Amino acid sequence: MKVAVTGGTGMIGRKLIASLLATPELIGCDGRKSEISSITAFDVIPPNPPLPEDARLNFIMGEISDADSIAALINDDTDAVFHLAAVVSAQAEEDFDLGMRVNLDGTRIVLERCRMLDHVPRVVYASSVAAFGGEMPGVINDAVTPNPQTTYGVTKVIGEYLIDDYSRKGFIDGRALRLPTIVVRPGRPNKAASTWASSILREPLAGHSAVCPVTEETKMWMLSPRRVVEAFRHAQALKPEAWGSHRVVNLPGITGSVAESLQALSRAGGNSARARVKFEHDAFIQDIVDGWANTFTTPRGDAMGFNADTNLDEIISVFLEDDLQNQHAYYD
Amino acid sequence: MKVAVTGGTGMIGRKLIASLLATPELIGCDGRKSEISSITAFDVIPPNPPLPEDARLNFIMGEISDADSIAALINDDTDAVFHLAAVVSAQAEEDFDLGMRVNLDGTRIVLERCRMLDHVPRVVYASSVAAFGGEMPGVINDAVTPNPQTTYGVTKVIGEYLIDDYSRKGFIDGRALRLPTIVVRPGRPNKAASTWASSILREPLAGHSAVCPVTEETKMWMLSPRRVVEAFRHAQALKPEAWGSHRVVNLPGITGSVAESLQALSRAGGNSARARVKFEHDAFIQDIVDGWANTFTTPRGDAMGFNADTNLDEIISVFLEDDLQNQHAYYD
Repeated sequence: MKVAVTGGTGMIGRKLIASLLATPELIGCDGRKSEISSITAFDVIPPNPPLPEDARLNFIMGEISDADSIAALINDDTDAVFHLAAVVSAQAEEDFDLGMRVNLDGTRIVLERCRMLDHVPRVVYASSVAAFGGEMPGVINDAVTPNPQTTYGVTKVIGEYLIDDYSRKGFIDGRALRLPTIVVRPGRPNKAASTWASSILREPLAGHSAVCPVTEETKMWMLSPRRVVEAFRHAQALKPEAWGSHRVVNLPGITGSVAESLQALSRAGGNSARARVKFEHDAFIQDIVDGWANTFTTPRGDAMGFNADTNLDEIISVFLEDDLQNQHAYYD
Repeated sequence: MKVAVTGGTGMIGRKLIASLLATPELIGCDGRKSEISSITAFDVIPPNPPLPEDARLNFIMGEISDADSIAALINDDTDAVFHLAAVVSAQAEEDFDLGMRVNLDGTRIVLERCRMLDHVPRVVYASSVAAFGGEMPGVINDAVTPNPQTTYGVTKVIGEYLIDDYSRKGFIDGRALRLPTIVVRPGRPNKAASTWASSILREPLAGHSAVCPVTEETKMWMLSPRRVVEAFRHAQALKPEAWGSHRVVNLPGITGSVAESLQALSRAGGNSARARVKFEHDAFIQDIVDGWANTFTTPRGDAMGFNADTNLDEIISVFLEDDLQNQHAYYD
């Protein structure tokens, strides 16, 4: 079978592709396990660093909202689509039109292309806990109505409803995952308001200093990169009946405060690692983060067989095992 | 002030326009009462019967998804927009592309046009209880998450999220109303699966026979045309703060069974009217209607000052007062 991955050069895209190359099987349109013959990564920028050298892996550069590029990516051999491409939160807030074009129009282009195939591909879609906002209960359960307070979140929720309807109509067999904040992200700090959640663990573990702009009490809803890749693969493998009348799931995760993260950091890296984190309060960041849902109960996702990391120690172990070695290159 | 009404030749559009001509004031962008100088109705078909002759009323014929037509409809003098144009449920199920083009692309065209104005117009959007479906609680409260099971419902919910985000960004001052089934609709039976709910009252009251395709126990969530026009005007007049972080409201309505409707029919029209209704079961219609939410509690809408009809007798009175006289023409 052929697999298409949009946003294939992003952090999750890369890790998903590495996993698919290492364990090259997914569930085909017929519901049976099938070997992956080729993977096509799609992104708007050239991969940097390069994608792995592998005869099964191709790369197409293009705009997600360009139907011709997507027609080249997804074709009659494509059984599985992972649609990860998106303009992220801060960028979509800055450039509304870009957010709508990439996240909404782009998703429609991908879904329309899938609809035109002579088979019904499985499409796994990356949504986000940015779906939640505004007045929220203290604990988000599976029944809480999305009320996104960013254009990013709005386009993600709209994408979920499109995934639902395209699935109901039998155009695709879609599955949408609301991802927690991914911690520990490898690489450099980025412009996301959540970047500190990875930074306060990643930098000290790699021997560098980090700044925490929020209070010790600040909580975050988290999942490790390894678990999120597992979730995408599991979502792809589940039977259609497992989803019911709504093709969306809040992924299980864990809630951790800054204080708890730093305790786990001390356990993993000692007091010297802990000492590399300085607090420099940023009221702007604090305000944004305080608006995010941070505590969930996810019986639906649990029952469907999705798994969270056990605790913050495990989240750190995943980073140490999977990413620390490559991380040092980012500080040169 | 200038007012634009999309779907202006439809049942609600006509009644709203009649109301605006009779009581020509709305709240302007400055939050103050302002006299209506002109109303432009927009629709894809010519008005039949004609719209009222009134120097303040204009008509533009065009496609809602055609940006040039919408630019002609909405311009720098347009303070208030009522966006009612939509492909209805059965039609969007038959023609997915038409549903997406009119309901989703069309709504985006309207919102984009509003965004480009040099002021922030108030936009009132017709959504629907078709937002609800799938596994539902027995009583729908304000917290129930939309799970539409039709493309119509999906596009309506997507429109709500766009209204929310355009409002949050300050592009428009939007308000979205989830309408119950409108009963008694004047005119002819149509292809809606709900058409019997009006027909079993309207036809007998006008002296004609009607067929009820569902059981006596079947319930419907209803609102009269008069109340829905009041709701659109009230939604337009409410302060932005009244809406909070979510610009959507489930309108209050009343739940009535077929049996209760027929009892009210007997009270209004006597046994002779009641005798004009025959039951001819249609399992297809019954199935569709059984999938609809029919019992709501609407504390948010109540607190915001929206009003339902008192009971089925009032719903019938509204028809007798507002529409019976014109109804006879439909049977020629």
